[in-house]
Amino acid sequence: MRKDAYWYCSKCGFRENIWKKYYWKCPLCGNPLDLDYQIEFDTSGRGILRYEGMLPFKPEKTRGEGSTPLVIEKSNSATILFKLEYLNPSGSFKDRGTSLAIYYAYKMGFKEVVEDTSGNTGISVTLYSKVYGLKPLIVMPRTAPYGKKLIIKKLGGTIVEARDRTEASQIVTKMVHDRFYVAHTWSYFYIIGSSTIAYEVFEEYGIPDYVIAPIGSGGLFLGLFYGFKKLVELGLTDKFPKFIGVQGYSVHPVYKALAGHSVEGDSSLADGIMVSNPPRLNELVSVIRESGGIVELVGNKEIIEALRELYELGFIVEPTSAVVWAVFRRLREKIQNKVVLLPLTGSGLKITSE
Amino acid sequence: MRKDAYWYCSKCGFRENIWKKYYWKCPLCGNPLDLDYQIEFDTSGRGILRYEGMLPFKPEKTRGEGSTPLVIEKSNSATILFKLEYLNPSGSFKDRGTSLAIYYAYKMGFKEVVEDTSGNTGISVTLYSKVYGLKPLIVMPRTAPYGKKLIIKKLGGTIVEARDRTEASQIVTKMVHDRFYVAHTWSYFYIIGSSTIAYEVFEEYGIPDYVIAPIGSGGLFLGLFYGFKKLVELGLTDKFPKFIGVQGYSVHPVYKALAGHSVEGDSSLADGIMVSNPPRLNELVSVIRESGGIVELVGNKEIIEALRELYELGFIVEPTSAVVWAVFRRLREKIQNKVVLLPLTGSGLKITSE
Repeated sequence: MRKDAYWYCSKCGFRENIWKKYYWKCPLCGNPLDLDYQIEFDTSGRGILRYEGMLPFKPEKTRGEGSTPLVIEKSNSATILFKLEYLNPSGSFKDRGTSLAIYYAYKMGFKEVVEDTSGNTGISVTLYSKVYGLKPLIVMPRTAPYGKKLIIKKLGGTIVEARDRTEASQIVTKMVHDRFYVAHTWSYFYIIGSSTIAYEVFEEYGIPDYVIAPIGSGGLFLGLFYGFKKLVELGLTDKFPKFIGVQGYSVHPVYKALAGHSVEGDSSLADGIMVSNPPRLNELVSVIRESGGIVELVGNKEIIEALRELYELGFIVEPTSAVVWAVFRRLREKIQNKVVLLPLTGSGLKITSE
Repeated sequence: MRKDAYWYCSKCGFRENIWKKYYWKCPLCGNPLDLDYQIEFDTSGRGILRYEGMLPFKPEKTRGEGSTPLVIEKSNSATILFKLEYLNPSGSFKDRGTSLAIYYAYKMGFKEVVEDTSGNTGISVTLYSKVYGLKPLIVMPRTAPYGKKLIIKKLGGTIVEARDRTEASQIVTKMVHDRFYVAHTWSYFYIIGSSTIAYEVFEEYGIPDYVIAPIGSGGLFLGLFYGFKKLVELGLTDKFPKFIGVQGYSVHPVYKALAGHSVEGDSSLADGIMVSNPPRLNELVSVIRESGGIVELVGNKEIIEALRELYELGFIVEPTSAVVWAVFRRLREKIQNKVVLLPLTGSGLKITSE
């Protein structure tokens, strides 16, 4: 399947067929690019390909991304829908978007793939690059967890070390040339990928009252938001959930843009959402503002406590994944008798130290 | 749902309702016990509960065990069905059986669970014990991988260290008292659990020509064997696969019993299948003999090479899981144009050293 699909810039109106050329951002104004294509909710099979009609194209290879378990638990009067995204093939929800991005790179004739990441995206990009015979180059902060680096190496990825996330993004722009720059914090492929989580929840359970989702670069949050929105637009439901975004005390640009001020504190354990300049910041702020959503902040102390509880519940996740549980615990009294979706984003099996 | 189900000893004929008392082996003759109950292939939902009619009872809780991805790849003329069992909630196929065993322990009123294991079963048993509010005590050899021990601790399990696997089983028998002894190497629950893999493959693809499966205690091998056999008995297919068991040079009791001799060599990397006295040895030998199956042996050198190739293919597995790929590579020329099922048993994310 190869639909007509177009890069589209919501800021300046730039529009071009995606099979003509790859852009990781708008070539005219530098804005993040969206994708414009026909959608249809016809379901068959499993994984993200079950929603082929909602995707811009159908990847030839799969490693089992999507169709993750939905575990339903009661907590006092609330119904919690835990979505086990950490059981994706590389251990995080990123696989949904990566399987699209790397297939596109392969079809466009790229031979090498480059990406700057703190970890999970690096594992995911390496895995799918190898599947399509492309060479993955991963630029990572020196401080990224050892276990994550080790898995990238085992998968056959080449790691380039940077001082921090900022230097990583500087290094990567120098490396692009004729390589495919994944740019997952900009990429609409990752938003489309994350939207399939909403479709799965809709089919297996229905529409929740609340969605509590972490915001790093915002791909997961926007993917869930647009996913549930598309179900409404297609007339499949008239219910739309309330959205609660979660950021950390250390880094919280979306919270700051909405509230007009910062908060002091340490949330360094949630390394997966420490993105200080998310390219889609304005978009995040406007969807949250328009929909009446909110952003909550969490710190290391709550993360540790939430992580401990999630393990006791049988969920082997990484600290970043615990931020949604920390917020659920805080808001438990206010959202009685409601159904709350909590995506659990990354596997705890990768963490090698106590 | 609570069916009539009975412990049944195929050696001495002992038979008793399972809701009356728990036995981890036959109280009369010491043989492993089977379970006898009515089955029906009526499918709905996902995970192992999709095959509720094939189970002796329906666990109240799930953590998403089962419904693992089936990745289909061509290798020369062969079609390979990779079954991604390492994407189960605790990172191995054991979760299918553990979810049954621990629910049974809970319903029978046990408060504490004890098990001797080299790793994966310990993680799985700890996870489901906590889910049902039981206290898990895990007896492990000192040499078990650090990463596996760490996860057990994080899940809230208590580890008792033993010199080796033999001492672990001595310690555990002293600890049983009024605790639930899982005894996964004896347990029919683990065989029933593994049978659901066969049902999933049947529904998603059909019946393969070959099944290549590791044999440690034999629960996975027997589960697959009986699972495919039940599909024939129920008249759902008349095709039955050829079975190839895999053991290691270091420890290979089933191979020895069939061939009448041992082979020298080192397969210590495949720690998950180093079981020197599998309680179901006679049963394994007789099903392999009667069905015309074979057992192949592998060593560390082939395991390292196979593991490297599996990572390049995008499968993040532990070394024990690579033994089936090592055997497939060896037999590739002989099984042209055939469909081969390869279960990939355990996650590589748990391995913390190079």
